[in-house]
Amino acid sequence: MFNTAELGHKVSKSQFKEMVPALRAALLDAQATLFLEKKKSIVLLISGEDGAGKRESIGVLYEWMDPRYLSTLAFEPPSDDERERPMMWRYWRSLPPKGRIGIFAGSWYSDPIRQRIGGEISEKALEARAQQINRFEAMLVAEGAVVVKLWIHLSQDGQRKRFESLQKDPRTAWRVTPWNWERLKSYEQLRTVSSEFLRATNTHWAPWVVVEGTDERYRSLRVAQVVHAALLSAQSPSAAPMPVPAPAAEPDVDGRNVLSVLDLEQKLADGPYKKELGELQGRLSVLARDPRLQRRGLVLAFEGADAAGKGGAIRRISAALDARQFQIVPVAAPTEEERAQPHLWRFWRHMPRNGHITVFDRTWYGRVLVERVEGFCAPADWQRAYTEINDLEHELVQGGVIVMKFWLQISQEEQLRRFREREQIPFKRFKITEEDWRNREKWQAYQRAVCDMVERTSTESAPWTLVEANDKNFARVKILRTVCETLEQQLALTSTLTGSKEKEKEKEKEKEKEKEKEKEKCRSKRKPQPPAERKKKTK
Amino acid sequence: MFNTAELGHKVSKSQFKEMVPALRAALLDAQATLFLEKKKSIVLLISGEDGAGKRESIGVLYEWMDPRYLSTLAFEPPSDDERERPMMWRYWRSLPPKGRIGIFAGSWYSDPIRQRIGGEISEKALEARAQQINRFEAMLVAEGAVVVKLWIHLSQDGQRKRFESLQKDPRTAWRVTPWNWERLKSYEQLRTVSSEFLRATNTHWAPWVVVEGTDERYRSLRVAQVVHAALLSAQSPSAAPMPVPAPAAEPDVDGRNVLSVLDLEQKLADGPYKKELGELQGRLSVLARDPRLQRRGLVLAFEGADAAGKGGAIRRISAALDARQFQIVPVAAPTEEERAQPHLWRFWRHMPRNGHITVFDRTWYGRVLVERVEGFCAPADWQRAYTEINDLEHELVQGGVIVMKFWLQISQEEQLRRFREREQIPFKRFKITEEDWRNREKWQAYQRAVCDMVERTSTESAPWTLVEANDKNFARVKILRTVCETLEQQLALTSTLTGSKEKEKEKEKEKEKEKEKEKEKCRSKRKPQPPAERKKKTK
Repeated sequence: MFNTAELGHKVSKSQFKEMVPALRAALLDAQATLFLEKKKSIVLLISGEDGAGKRESIGVLYEWMDPRYLSTLAFEPPSDDERERPMMWRYWRSLPPKGRIGIFAGSWYSDPIRQRIGGEISEKALEARAQQINRFEAMLVAEGAVVVKLWIHLSQDGQRKRFESLQKDPRTAWRVTPWNWERLKSYEQLRTVSSEFLRATNTHWAPWVVVEGTDERYRSLRVAQVVHAALLSAQSPSAAPMPVPAPAAEPDVDGRNVLSVLDLEQKLADGPYKKELGELQGRLSVLARDPRLQRRGLVLAFEGADAAGKGGAIRRISAALDARQFQIVPVAAPTEEERAQPHLWRFWRHMPRNGHITVFDRTWYGRVLVERVEGFCAPADWQRAYTEINDLEHELVQGGVIVMKFWLQISQEEQLRRFREREQIPFKRFKITEEDWRNREKWQAYQRAVCDMVERTSTESAPWTLVEANDKNFARVKILRTVCETLEQQLALTSTLTGSKEKEKEKEKEKEKEKEKEKEKCRSKRKPQPPAERKKKTK
Repeated sequence: MFNTAELGHKVSKSQFKEMVPALRAALLDAQATLFLEKKKSIVLLISGEDGAGKRESIGVLYEWMDPRYLSTLAFEPPSDDERERPMMWRYWRSLPPKGRIGIFAGSWYSDPIRQRIGGEISEKALEARAQQINRFEAMLVAEGAVVVKLWIHLSQDGQRKRFESLQKDPRTAWRVTPWNWERLKSYEQLRTVSSEFLRATNTHWAPWVVVEGTDERYRSLRVAQVVHAALLSAQSPSAAPMPVPAPAAEPDVDGRNVLSVLDLEQKLADGPYKKELGELQGRLSVLARDPRLQRRGLVLAFEGADAAGKGGAIRRISAALDARQFQIVPVAAPTEEERAQPHLWRFWRHMPRNGHITVFDRTWYGRVLVERVEGFCAPADWQRAYTEINDLEHELVQGGVIVMKFWLQISQEEQLRRFREREQIPFKRFKITEEDWRNREKWQAYQRAVCDMVERTSTESAPWTLVEANDKNFARVKILRTVCETLEQQLALTSTLTGSKEKEKEKEKEKEKEKEKEKEKCRSKRKPQPPAERKKKTK
C-alpha cells in the first residue's frame, strides 16, 4: 500500500507558488457549488502515522477553503458518554449534512488499528471490523456522501527525522513526547497492521489515497488536489444508489512516480551475469525441491510492456526447474469459453496445487492495464477490479500460496530499439505485429495505469517487484534473486503457517473414519429386507 | 431469519395440480431465453437443514426444466487435490458459464458453518469469512451472474418427524443414519450459527430466500417460483456493473404469511387484564432499576398500522418507568436537517446510553414500509435498507444494547371501527386525518411490505414480536410480558457480555494515567524557555 508514498516526492518553492493560486480558486469554487447544490456531503478522513502531517494538512484546507462550511472532528479516546453507547454512535452524530465537508481527524479506523497493535483484538476480529466499516461506508456513499480516505504516510526514517526536527525547534518541541518515541519503536507493527487493514477496506466506493508526508509542499498540494477531485465528483449528477467509483489517481504534482524513480541505466556485464545466473539457478533448483514447498504453492506473475523481456526472464527461471513441477501459462485474449465467465475465472483454473509452480506470462492485471487503456471494458469494471484482484491474491495467500509479481520496465527508446532489432532478425520477426507499433502510441496512458496498479495492489502479502529491464542481464538476475530470497523467507514461515491446515486435515480423516464406522454399524443393524419383498411393497 | 418459514405452509393436491403446468411452461420458456441470449448465468445455492428437502428440490428442478442446461455440483469434504489449493478454487472451477444454471448442493457456506459448529473457528473468523463471501458474490453479480441463495428450512420438530417418516418407509430408511440423529441434537446450535451467518451474508445483491421445507408441494412450488424470478431478472437489460437489487418476495403460494397466521380474535377480559397489567408493570419497574441495566441500553421499537394501538401500549410501559430514565421518540416525516443526512442518522441521535431506555413510536423501518409503499424513495433505496437496518441493529447489540421490536397487527375491519370511533369521540378526533383514510386503500401493499420486513430483519439478536392487537387488553399484556421476559433473559447475560468491555475501560484508564505521568515527566525535563526569549527567536 505504501510503495507509492516512499518515493521522496518533492515540490520546489517556485513550483508551489505557481500552482497554489489556481488550486485555491478551484477549491473555493467547487466548495461553493457543493454548498449551494446541497446534493452531496464530503466525509474526509485524515489518517496516517504520527508526525506525518495530519494536523498541518487540515490547517492547509482551512487556509485555502471557506472555513464556514468545514467542520473538523477530532476523536480522542471516547468519553464516558460515548463509551456507554455503541461504538459507531459518536461517528454517526458527527456526520456532515449535505452541502458540507466533515473532516475526521481520527475515525472509525483509529480504534481497531490501536487495539490490534495492543493485542486486544485478534487478526480475525480486525477483518470482521473491516467488513462492518465497508458496509457502513457503502451506506454513506449510497446515501449521497463522497467518502475520501487519506493516509498521510511517513517512512520510519522519515518519522525519526521529523521528530528530531520538531524537538530541535523550541516552538514545536512540546509536540514530541516520550510516548511518540515509543510509538516509533513499534513502527513496523503499525505498518503491518495498518497496511493489512487498508487493503481490507480499500473498496472501489471508498478507496484509500496514500500521500507521502515528508515534503510539506508536496503533501499540501496533493491533499488539496484529492479534496478538489472529491468536490468535483460530488457535482456529478449521478444519483446512482450504488457507490461512486474511485477517480483514477491524479497525475503526481512533481512528475515523480514509481516508474520515473527507477534507474533504467543499471547494467550487468556478460561475465558477472553468467556467473551470477548460474549460482542463482542452482539455488532456485535446490529451493524448488525443498520438502517444505510440498506444502505450499508458488505463483510467479509477469507483466511488462511489449518487448520488455518477460519471455527471456521466464526461460531463465524454468531452466532451473523440473518440468513436472511447473507450468507456464501464456495469457492472450480470452477465449469464448472464458468470456462466458467472470474475468478472473480463467486464471483460477491454473492456480497451482501444493508443491507446484505456475508462471503467468501476463496475468489478471490485464483488466487494469490493456483493458483499461484500450477501453475493452467499462470504467466501472476496471475500477472494481483492483479490489477483486486483491481479494483473489488474499485468497491465494491464505491458502498457503506464495505470490510474487514482477513488472518489467523499459524506456520508450529501448522498446523502439528492440522493435527495430526484431524486424531485422528473421527468427525474431514473428514476434512483432502491427499492434505492437500501435500500443507504443499509448505509452503515457499505460504508464499511468501501471502507477495506479502498483498503488492499489502492492500489498504486504503480495507485493510488486519493479524491475529495471533496459539491460536484460540486470533484469534477469534481479528477478532470479528476488525469487530465491522470497522463497527462502516464505519457506521459513511454512511450518507455522500450514501447521493448522495439517491438523485440520488429520481431524478430517479421523472424522471420516468415525463416520465409516457408524455407517458400518447401521448397515448391520438395519438388516435390509430381501429385494423380493421390497418389490411387493412398491407395487 | 427463519420466522417466515415456520408457518406450516401447505398446498393442497388440487391447487398443486392447477399451478404446476403454467409454472413449468414459464420456467422452460425463461430458461430457453437465458440459454439463447447468454447474457447472464444463474448461480443457485441450495442449502438448509438435513432432511429439509434439498435433494428433492433439485429433483423437481430437473423434472420441470430442461436438464441439458442444468448442472449440479455436489461438494463432499474436499479431495486431496482440492485441499491442496486455496479454499475457493473448487467453487471457481465449477461456476456456470453465461446462459446456464449451476446448482450448488453445498457451497462456500457449508464449510464455515460446519467449522463454527465444531468449534474449529471463532465467531470473529466466521464474520471475516462472511466478508470474503460477500465480496466474492458482489464480484459474481458484477460479472453477470444472478446469485440465488435458497435455504430450505425445517424446524427441529419438523426434522424429527421427517427422519421418523423416512425411517418407517423401507425404501428411504437407508437415508437416515445415526449421524443424522446426532445432528438433530445439535439443531439449536446449527440454528444459531446459520441464522447469524445468513444475516451477515444477506446482502441486497445476493439475498437469502428461506423456504419452509415441511410440505413437499409447497416447497416445490416455492423453489420453482424463486428460480423463475431469477430467470426473469437475468433477462433484464441492465448491464449495471453493480449488484442487481433483490426482487421483493413473491406472494406466498398458499396465501399463508406471518400476518395471516395470527389469531386476531384473542381477547383478554377487563378483570384479568387489570390484574396482569399491574403485576407486569411492577415487574418491569423492578427490572428497570436492576443494577445490571446500568451496563446495558434498551431500545423498544413500535410499528403498526394506523390506530393499531401503539400509543396506548407505550403509555402502559412508560407508566412503569422513571421519567429520568427513558425517552419516547415519536417519529414523523424527517425534518430538513434530517433529510440532509443518511436516512438512519435521525435514529442514531436518540440511541440510549447505558442504563437508559428509548422507546421509538415508529422507527427506522419507515423506509421499508411507508417509503416503499408510497414510493417516497427509489426501489433500490428500500431494497438496500434491509441490510443497512440489520447492520444498525447488529451494531447496537454488539454495543450491549437490548433491542426489541413490536409489530401491532389489527384487521382491516377493526381499523375501520376505530377510525369511526375516533370521529365520534371529540377528544380522539384530532387523531384521524385524510391521510389515514387514504392509507387504508393500500392495505394489501402494506401487508406485503410487513411480511418482507419480518422475513429480512427478524434476526436472532433483534427479533420481531408480532402482536395480535384487535383486542387492546390482549396486545398490551403481550407486549409488557415480552419486555419483562426478554429483559430478564438479557440481564442474565450481562456479566459475560460486558465483562470484556469493563476490562477495556479499566485498561483505558490505566493507560491514560500512564500517559499523564509521561507528560509530567516531559514537562519537568523540557524546561521551557521564558516567553521573552521565545519571542526573540521567532522574530
